[in-house]
Amino acid sequence: MSGTTADTNSAMMANKLFAIGHTIDRKVTIGDDFDLLVQEINQLSKESDVLIINGGLGPTVDDLTAKALGKASNRNLVEHPEALLHLKSWCKKLGVSLNDANLKQAILPEAIEILENLTGSAVGLKLTHNQCLILCTPGVPSELNTMLDVAVTPIIENSFPNPHKPFIDHLQCFGIGEATFQQKVNDTYPNWPKEVELSFRAGAPCLEIKLTTFRAEDDALKQKCKDDLYHLFGDYFIAEGKQSIAQMLVTLLQLNKKKITFAESCTGGLMASMITEVSGASTVFEAGFVTYSNSIKTSLLGVKTKTLEQFGAVSPQVAQEMLSGALAKSKADYGIAVSGIAGPEGGSEEKPVGTVCIAWGSLEENHQITLLMPRSRKMFQIMVAATGFDLVRRLILNIDSTPRYFARKLINGAKGEPK
Amino acid sequence: MSGTTADTNSAMMANKLFAIGHTIDRKVTIGDDFDLLVQEINQLSKESDVLIINGGLGPTVDDLTAKALGKASNRNLVEHPEALLHLKSWCKKLGVSLNDANLKQAILPEAIEILENLTGSAVGLKLTHNQCLILCTPGVPSELNTMLDVAVTPIIENSFPNPHKPFIDHLQCFGIGEATFQQKVNDTYPNWPKEVELSFRAGAPCLEIKLTTFRAEDDALKQKCKDDLYHLFGDYFIAEGKQSIAQMLVTLLQLNKKKITFAESCTGGLMASMITEVSGASTVFEAGFVTYSNSIKTSLLGVKTKTLEQFGAVSPQVAQEMLSGALAKSKADYGIAVSGIAGPEGGSEEKPVGTVCIAWGSLEENHQITLLMPRSRKMFQIMVAATGFDLVRRLILNIDSTPRYFARKLINGAKGEPK
Repeated sequence: MSGTTADTNSAMMANKLFAIGHTIDRKVTIGDDFDLLVQEINQLSKESDVLIINGGLGPTVDDLTAKALGKASNRNLVEHPEALLHLKSWCKKLGVSLNDANLKQAILPEAIEILENLTGSAVGLKLTHNQCLILCTPGVPSELNTMLDVAVTPIIENSFPNPHKPFIDHLQCFGIGEATFQQKVNDTYPNWPKEVELSFRAGAPCLEIKLTTFRAEDDALKQKCKDDLYHLFGDYFIAEGKQSIAQMLVTLLQLNKKKITFAESCTGGLMASMITEVSGASTVFEAGFVTYSNSIKTSLLGVKTKTLEQFGAVSPQVAQEMLSGALAKSKADYGIAVSGIAGPEGGSEEKPVGTVCIAWGSLEENHQITLLMPRSRKMFQIMVAATGFDLVRRLILNIDSTPRYFARKLINGAKGEPK
Repeated sequence: MSGTTADTNSAMMANKLFAIGHTIDRKVTIGDDFDLLVQEINQLSKESDVLIINGGLGPTVDDLTAKALGKASNRNLVEHPEALLHLKSWCKKLGVSLNDANLKQAILPEAIEILENLTGSAVGLKLTHNQCLILCTPGVPSELNTMLDVAVTPIIENSFPNPHKPFIDHLQCFGIGEATFQQKVNDTYPNWPKEVELSFRAGAPCLEIKLTTFRAEDDALKQKCKDDLYHLFGDYFIAEGKQSIAQMLVTLLQLNKKKITFAESCTGGLMASMITEVSGASTVFEAGFVTYSNSIKTSLLGVKTKTLEQFGAVSPQVAQEMLSGALAKSKADYGIAVSGIAGPEGGSEEKPVGTVCIAWGSLEENHQITLLMPRSRKMFQIMVAATGFDLVRRLILNIDSTPRYFARKLINGAKGEPK
């Protein structure tokens, strides 16, 4: 409530509950106010079948859940041997000693069930109060994630089975915005069937498309809708499911038994970092070069001083020489080289902040493009990295057009004018 | 409500409102249900002085805010010339054409005020209904951020001035957990003054400490508390304010006119990426090496084949040779080299997932350490990168102890046994 943390947990809970056919009626956020917490537990438990309480089970003074739950449900706080045992073995696993602050986590309302926490110190709680099933879960996202899977959703599904689970198909799309997508669907398919919900999540860098149906008999209709979308946007779909653009590229390279390298200036290692965040990246990636200064572009990648002087560091020519150097040094099959102006400083009239030159390809076939992506520094880096990944995808899949990313004007492209 | 997006906007709003002395009474999240939206707008506007509505102003079919607001406040929807003008100039700026989906964003309830959006297409709205000040804001976080600063908080501060703004000091801490921190404060200062609120935000990789007072006359007391914390945890404080650990390191290197390089295996470019996310990084960083495979460690950084064979890639010896190679090639003053097992695959009994060897320092003075950080792949990479940054900070500041990070056992350290 004071804005120090972003709430990623609600989305995680809603997502997992939606998958078992349950929707959230109400989400209430309250601060570290003991009386308000007690009052809300009582009120919400009267109005709901299930109340999930998230957070406040930690070791510090502002962790009030156990105490508030005890007060609300008229239960004394007692030491739970099961919770204590968990704390001891958890601390032992980490090689730390159990202190008084941690011990507080075993003092819990009496006559409740303990939900095991496989990834952290705070156990979960289960009880019934006001004929409402109350489940308390830890606030640390990774711990919550595991507990939702192994305890919370099975308990809820068991108590409140719902035969009408949604059937959701996800598609990942790069290089096209939500508005353009929706408009083109509206124009082409004015009678889009109401049985197939079309929705979006505008992430960075990908746009996620969701097709949701609620009856198994609508499967064929959904498949037809999906085919229609592929017909309209085929080039722009990078993956089905929840894959990231980096996962897509790792998988594509694995299937083709190819390796990739990066020569990064303005992205400063982000391409390598995104690829190596994917487990198994070592099968497709051996070497990356972060060449931030001109002298390093020369000494490490063999970019000619003359090229730097004549065209500037942010030029297709320098990107091309960076690419050649990285391919030669790494012996990778494909490479991406980028040089651009991430900002907020460093722009000029001729090359404003957001200008980026990308070279990509192999020793045999390579291309360069110059794009203008005026975004915040971080977002610019993410979009440039993703654009590089997408250009290599297009090259491998032999989709030979240079797309008009986000309907923007290209400054120039290797393959002529933008479409 | 179906969990497809995490809510970072509420935290942003709460944060900025807290800074002008206002707290959020209630936060309600509802899905794309038109009737429920109308009902909630009416209910919440009756109960509140200010209602901020976030999101739903976009161009797609599931953007319902304008329509719901019109229904709730008995206003017809009309085309707003001011909003239309904004849309036209926005599209022109991006070099895209205005389509029907975008045009929808200019169809808004009559007799309202427009709040300009400096960074996106959806304008904000201002009106009074049920004697409640209603402000509608765009859902895109970067757009919301700007609109909160230039329009929303000034409007609220003007309408509801609060002389009792909080005075918040932030401290960033690396290498110590929330529980250990709290426990040590409890033990050492059992009579911590209630006028100085101590709270935490357990981020990754840093723990943020917040000291909050509400009266100017408590300033001296807060300063004393801060001094006490420095006395207890001095070594672990990396920065004051909201600085990231990468910003801290960039600033420290700038002050000392030194440059840094990275030789990354298990972090795969994350160190370079974190540093280059900081604007102005080019003054302290020229080159980074992502050497994922053994052969590249040898060809690029000169790691000896014999060393790799004898000790394995994840060894202090290999990390040391990676460091030496990176320092020589980049001519940087300081370097960090890491080799470890990020998992989930690749662990062994001798070197389990989470093992990492870090070498850091200059050509003149360098050290190696082996740590065990059994975390998820991504979190492992973040913690390893941050540990490297912190070790260089300690070296530059001549804090010569190797800390017992997170009270964990070191596998081995350059400077003897763990404390």
